[in-house]
Order: sequence, then C-alpha cells, then structure tokens
Amino acid sequence: MSSATPSSVSAVQSEGHGQIWSVDEHLDDILATVQPLDPIELQLLDAQGCVLVEDVTVPVSLPPFDNSSMDGYAVRVADVAGASEEFPAVLTVIGDVAAGRVGPDDRLTVGPGQAARIMTGAPLPPGAEAVVPVEWTDGGLGAGPVASMSAHSASPEGASGEVRVHRPAAARAHVRAQGSDVQAGDKALTTGTVLGPPQIALLAAIGRGTVRVRPRPRVVVVSTGSELVQPGEQLTEGQIFDSNSFALTAAARDAGAIAYRVGAVADDAETLRSTIEDQLIRADLIVTTGGVSVGAYDVVKEALTAVGDPDEEGGLGAGSGVEFRKLAMQPGKPQGFGSVGPDHTPLLALPGNPVSSYVSFELFVRPAVRTLMGLPAESVHRPTVRAALSTDKALTSPSGRRQFLRGAYDAETGRVAPVGGSGSHLVAALAHADALIVVPEDVTSVEPGAEVDVVLLG
Amino acid sequence: MSSATPSSVSAVQSEGHGQIWSVDEHLDDILATVQPLDPIELQLLDAQGCVLVEDVTVPVSLPPFDNSSMDGYAVRVADVAGASEEFPAVLTVIGDVAAGRVGPDDRLTVGPGQAARIMTGAPLPPGAEAVVPVEWTDGGLGAGPVASMSAHSASPEGASGEVRVHRPAAARAHVRAQGSDVQAGDKALTTGTVLGPPQIALLAAIGRGTVRVRPRPRVVVVSTGSELVQPGEQLTEGQIFDSNSFALTAAARDAGAIAYRVGAVADDAETLRSTIEDQLIRADLIVTTGGVSVGAYDVVKEALTAVGDPDEEGGLGAGSGVEFRKLAMQPGKPQGFGSVGPDHTPLLALPGNPVSSYVSFELFVRPAVRTLMGLPAESVHRPTVRAALSTDKALTSPSGRRQFLRGAYDAETGRVAPVGGSGSHLVAALAHADALIVVPEDVTSVEPGAEVDVVLLG
Repeated sequence: MSSATPSSVSAVQSEGHGQIWSVDEHLDDILATVQPLDPIELQLLDAQGCVLVEDVTVPVSLPPFDNSSMDGYAVRVADVAGASEEFPAVLTVIGDVAAGRVGPDDRLTVGPGQAARIMTGAPLPPGAEAVVPVEWTDGGLGAGPVASMSAHSASPEGASGEVRVHRPAAARAHVRAQGSDVQAGDKALTTGTVLGPPQIALLAAIGRGTVRVRPRPRVVVVSTGSELVQPGEQLTEGQIFDSNSFALTAAARDAGAIAYRVGAVADDAETLRSTIEDQLIRADLIVTTGGVSVGAYDVVKEALTAVGDPDEEGGLGAGSGVEFRKLAMQPGKPQGFGSVGPDHTPLLALPGNPVSSYVSFELFVRPAVRTLMGLPAESVHRPTVRAALSTDKALTSPSGRRQFLRGAYDAETGRVAPVGGSGSHLVAALAHADALIVVPEDVTSVEPGAEVDVVLLG
Repeated sequence: MSSATPSSVSAVQSEGHGQIWSVDEHLDDILATVQPLDPIELQLLDAQGCVLVEDVTVPVSLPPFDNSSMDGYAVRVADVAGASEEFPAVLTVIGDVAAGRVGPDDRLTVGPGQAARIMTGAPLPPGAEAVVPVEWTDGGLGAGPVASMSAHSASPEGASGEVRVHRPAAARAHVRAQGSDVQAGDKALTTGTVLGPPQIALLAAIGRGTVRVRPRPRVVVVSTGSELVQPGEQLTEGQIFDSNSFALTAAARDAGAIAYRVGAVADDAETLRSTIEDQLIRADLIVTTGGVSVGAYDVVKEALTAVGDPDEEGGLGAGSGVEFRKLAMQPGKPQGFGSVGPDHTPLLALPGNPVSSYVSFELFVRPAVRTLMGLPAESVHRPTVRAALSTDKALTSPSGRRQFLRGAYDAETGRVAPVGGSGSHLVAALAHADALIVVPEDVTSVEPGAEVDVVLLG
C-alpha cells in the first residue's frame, strides 16, 4: 500500500477561461497552509485518539515494589526446602498481606518457621523470599491441597493458625520484582505517538492523569442552498433534502474531528457571512458546500471572494482570503480554499452536489483534518492500492481530468468493480461503494482487467 | 484473513482442582447469552456507526424533479440548432431560475426564441428541453464567451436582455432526469447495514431525519482493588495506579460502546455490590477487573458468586448469577461471567492484572460489545492472520494453555515479532504491540520462522 497522495501529474492547463489546477497542486496548497493545532494538556480519557506532544518518562518504576504474582503464602526458602505432600513443611501463619490494606499486618516480618498469607499484588513482606501458591498448600485447613482461600470476611481465622506447604519454592518464586516492567527514567512513550487504549493503559499505570496532546480539531460544516430542506420535513416544489451537512459532519467525525453541523443556509451572501462569523469561535476548520461555481447565486464565492481586505478589522475580512479555483478533476471541479477571520481559520469550500462534496471531502478535507491533528504523513491520507478493474466494458473518462469513480473493492481477489455510473449525483451508488477508482488525467479509457489506483475508504 | 474465533480446541481438562474451560467454550457461552440490544429510533447523526434495523425504501425519487447540472441557460433545442460563435443563436432572457427560489420567476415557461438563465440544481422550466452552460454563451454581455455569470445581487440585469448562444445542445443536455439516482419504492438500504458517512448521506438525501438502529451499548467499567490510586495522585507504600479502568473504558469506546469509567472500588464486597447496583441503571454491560482469583480478598467473586437467588426481589440477586471459572489460557486464567440485576444485565469479571485484563477484554468483552451492537459475525471478532514468527530463539509456552503474547506485526513481510516477555504484568510491552501472537494449548515451543496465528489489534 502507498499513501493516497496521488501519482503526480502537475497538469496546469488552460480550459477556455482561466487557469485549471491539478488535484495535487490544490492538495499541496492546502497542506502547506494547514498547521497542526497547538498542544494542550488533556485528561487521559479525553486524549484518546490524539497525538502525544511530549516524551513521557517513567517517574516511578513498575511495579513500584516487589509483590506477589499469586494468592498464597510468603515464606523463607529454607523453611520449605524438600517439602512434599507426604512430608509438608508446617509453618505458623502470622497474618494476611492483602494488596492495598493499611493496618498492623502491613508491618509483618516473616521469621524462620513463619508464613504470611499473601494476595496477588500485595508487597512481599520483609523476611520472605518466595511465595508458594495456595494450591500447593492445605490452606490452613489441615487436610489435602486446596483450590482457593476462603474469603477473609467469612473466615478471619485463615489469617492465623498453621499451614502445610506441599512443595518447595526457589528464591523469588512467584515474586514480581520491583521495576521489572519499567524503570524510573525509562522513556515510556515518545512524542508523535497516537494514544490508543494500550497507550492510555501505560500512561495511567505510570501515574499520568493528564497528558499533553494536540486536541481533536473542531470542524464546522455549513451547507448552502435555498433549495435545501432538513430531512424529515416536507419537500415542496423545487426543493431537495440537505444531505451534505449530515454526510460531511459524519465524515469529519470519522476522520477524528469534533464536528458541528450547522443547518443549511439560504443563498444570501450576508446571511452566509454572518453565519460563518458566528461559527469562528468554535472552529478550527470550516467546511462549506455549494455556491462555488459560476452561477449568479453562488453565494459562497460571492461572500468569501472579497475577504482578505487588509484594512478591515476583525470579522471575516481580517483573514487572508479565500481563492476559488477550477480543478482538473471529476467530480469536484469548482473548489475554494483559504482562511477567514482574525485567527486565519482555514476554510474549504466544496461544491454542492452530494457526491462531488463527498469526494472533495475525502481528497482535501480529510487530509486537512488529520494534519490539524498532527498525525504522521502515512496516516494523513487514505491508503491506496492497485487493483484490476472488474467490468464488462471499458470505462471512459474525460481527457485532462482526474476522474474518481465509486467502486467496490475485493481484497481477496484484488479486483475493484465500479458502482453506479459516473454521474456526480449518484448518492445511492456512493452508499454502496467502499473505494474510489482513480482514472488519471491523461487516460480516456480503461479496459476491463486493467490495473487502476484505488483509494480505500473503509 | 479469517475471524478470530479460534482454532477450536475444546480442552476440558482437570488441573488438580475443578474444571478448566477452554477459551472457545467461555467465548461461546458469552456469545450465546449476550443478545443484540433492542432497536430504537435515533436522529441521523446519532446513528453513526450503528446497525440499521429496518429496510429503508426510497419515499420519493431522486432527483425529485428534472434539474440543471450546470449554470447556464435553459433553451429549446430548435432555437440553438446550428449555433456557433460566428453565428450565435440570439435568445431573449425571460428571467432566472435559481435552486430553491420561490417567486414569480419559478413559473417561467420558455417559449420559442426565449431562454431562462438557470442555476445548477434548479428545476428545468416548462418549455425548455436542454441547458447550455454559461461558458457556451456571451453571458448576455454581447461580447465573446464568458467564464461565469455575474452575481445576481450585483448585476440583476443579467436575468433579462439577450443572450448569444455559441453551440447547439441536444435534447436533455445537462439535464439530470427526475428519478435518475433512485426511484421511489427502491430499496435504499437493508437491515443490518452499518451506517457510515455515505449511508448517512443517502438517508438524508431521501429525507430520513431519524432511523431505526440498535443503539451503542453502554458499558460500565469498574476496577477493584484497595491498592489502586487514581493517576495524578500520590502513591504511598503498597499502592499502584489504577490503569484498568482507563484502559478498558478506552477499549470499550474503541469497540463502539458508550463507556462509563467508575473509579476504583476498594476490596469490600458490600461496597462493590452497591456500586454495581447503582450503575445498573445506565449499563447494558458491566465489566469489572480484579478480585476473581483464589485469594481471601477477591471481593468480586465474593460479592457476585452469591447472586442469582430466585427469592430475592430486585437488586443484584434478581439476575441469573455469575459463574467464576478457570480458563486454559495465559494470561487471563480466572474469569467470571453472568448477569446481574432485574434486567439480567450481562457482567464480565476480568482478572486485575493490567495485561490480563486487557487481553481478556480483547477476547471476551469486545466480541460481547459488538454482539450487543448487532454487528455481523465477521465484524464481531478481530481479524486473524497467519504470520511467520520473527525471533532469535524458540518461544516456550505452557502445555494445556492457550498463550497470548504481545507482538508487532509487519504486513509487508508477513512476520510478527514478540514484544516484551510473557510476564502478564508487562503493560509497557502492551503499549508497543499491535497484535496478539496465539500459541495453542498443545504447543509448548514455537521455532523461529514458524507460522503462528496473529490477532490484529489495530
């Protein structure tokens, strides 16, 4: 598998009017601008999935003290030498050593001929050299070998009396030595580590309640379009349901972000500007859909093309501006990217068609989210594989555009089959695809069985 | 890859005292008891990652009406036949048709010699047969081809006057036909589908604001042990930090659950019973760590062995009881499983050692969580692969126990290397592993280069 940064074609073409940018150029510009978020100190469980931004050193050795790895009896080696079931060593039980119990028994010292009943994890008492498991003894009952101890709450007498030991034990038997897992001063985890459950286990074990990480990016998703109706409501003539704000909010979460869905905004530039301004306070990245093409009501373009006026204080204009481009790709030709507001919050303006916006999210927004998280380069992009095209007839693709077709990938056979057609409105096909088939700019036809690049979405 | 339900060895052995269960028997018992949660209706974005429990039919065809796929002009085919840049067709612009705009222009009818300026997604007006993109026209400016329309807000005159069309258009050109994505009555998604972002896109697009799914299981994690101190606080003699409640809460979330971490409970049976009783209200599954072995202070065993008294009304005892077993595995020999409380809430009692509890979670709790979610069998278990053991000397393993060693798996080479030793307390090694190496019950030594089963944790 290679990373999904695609097979570099730096196709800057002129297509009648204005410059055409390649997919790679646009992505490079985005990734050159978006910087990992500043680290903050987070509670351990809030840091799950985040990238560590410190080298964590072990402050105290683990285990912090010699302790028993079994439930049994702490003994002196000489006292049990040669012990057998026929000729047991008979020892005086001087008390219990239980993990974490604080009391007089914690100061027990095991002398010659003595044993302390000891529980898993409890500190080996002074004088003791080994632990014999309870199954190697009569448990103090004076009969044969036992399977377990009786609960102390029910049978307090087990902490006294005599115990018969049926087997010898070597020095340090069933003792976990202090520092045998990690030593104070060892490096536990290094900066750049992604914190999954096992890393959280280690951090907790060495006593870290908080940890310095890059936080999850907060992504605000705004769909635009006067024709959009919230799912569950009633459509009237000329209206469609807003799917983009739902799809991209879910996709942003899936990428690792905290995502906020803002309801669809009507095609009015002032409303859009003020909506985005309102959202800046909680946004590390803003994603809009729709309104980026060449129409007379493309309000995202209208509202954001003007930003970046250096004379304007605060508001959207204080950012460095948003540029709208035509890309040599299908779907997803019109794209906007830049930053807005006093903190220069990055903004990606995606086309409004549901499949175009989804493919654009995968190609541009997901890598931006994962760059904000500080993930290593190999985790920024979706994995790409080569696969044989499984189809009855050749695929056609426009010249000069990188085409992304929805596909179903079969890892067993290494084959990928197109799902649905190439129409950019086929959201139904998208829901049954798990991959994008990439047809390069200079390829206009792909024969059945030919090898293609496949971006795995799974 | 095959599922991780392991290579069936049904080893019921006697080991001195009492029955020993195999890993598979214990897992089978758990999965035979745990049932998928009852479905509920959730808001679309709350259903992300959940399993659909209805066949969703398309209520209205998509797109719901013939609409334009471009920004341009809606025309009659005969009016633009033979048009060229040299000999353009000159049409009268009768108004704008913008997506979702409601007003007099929405009732435009395109007559002979007329054109309506139309935006992407807007309904094709009556009389019009095709759309010519704005780039094929003079945009109404009377000069050469244009790249885009001017914003209506700035140049309202663009909705009137004349437009010169430079190319002909076939019938239905740049028109997305009503129903070309999905047809009313089609099956959109079937029961059992896991709802990822593309499925959420489709559900929103067809107007579903809520959807019937199995909810995420709520997992309550309780660690037990009087020696446990919260990370970030000060250790005193004989104490260690509680890592299990953090590790398993993170792991439960990672498995798909909503996980609640309950702080460590001291080794007192009554405290534990009342803690679990308190938590029942928010638990679909309870996971405890510690207190399941053969010691005199194993309070989980003490508190829960007794439950299941049919005479008791309410409380823990109303459930069907918890059974404590010895398993033929290393680490993780002592295990408890059963159900508690009036709703028979399933409970898994894992050993207290951090690595034992983590491995036990992977083997038993994760499949239980994913069964509660209603996931298909192939998604219940971690994937297992065969890999060549990369090590200098043979691994040894106890006879009669299935051993799980922490390993680092390299997909490129198909090799797996052990990480750390076999000691069950090596939490540091766990944090650097991404796989479990499985050594079967009847194998006591594995040579370097030999093939082994590897459970991928990634």
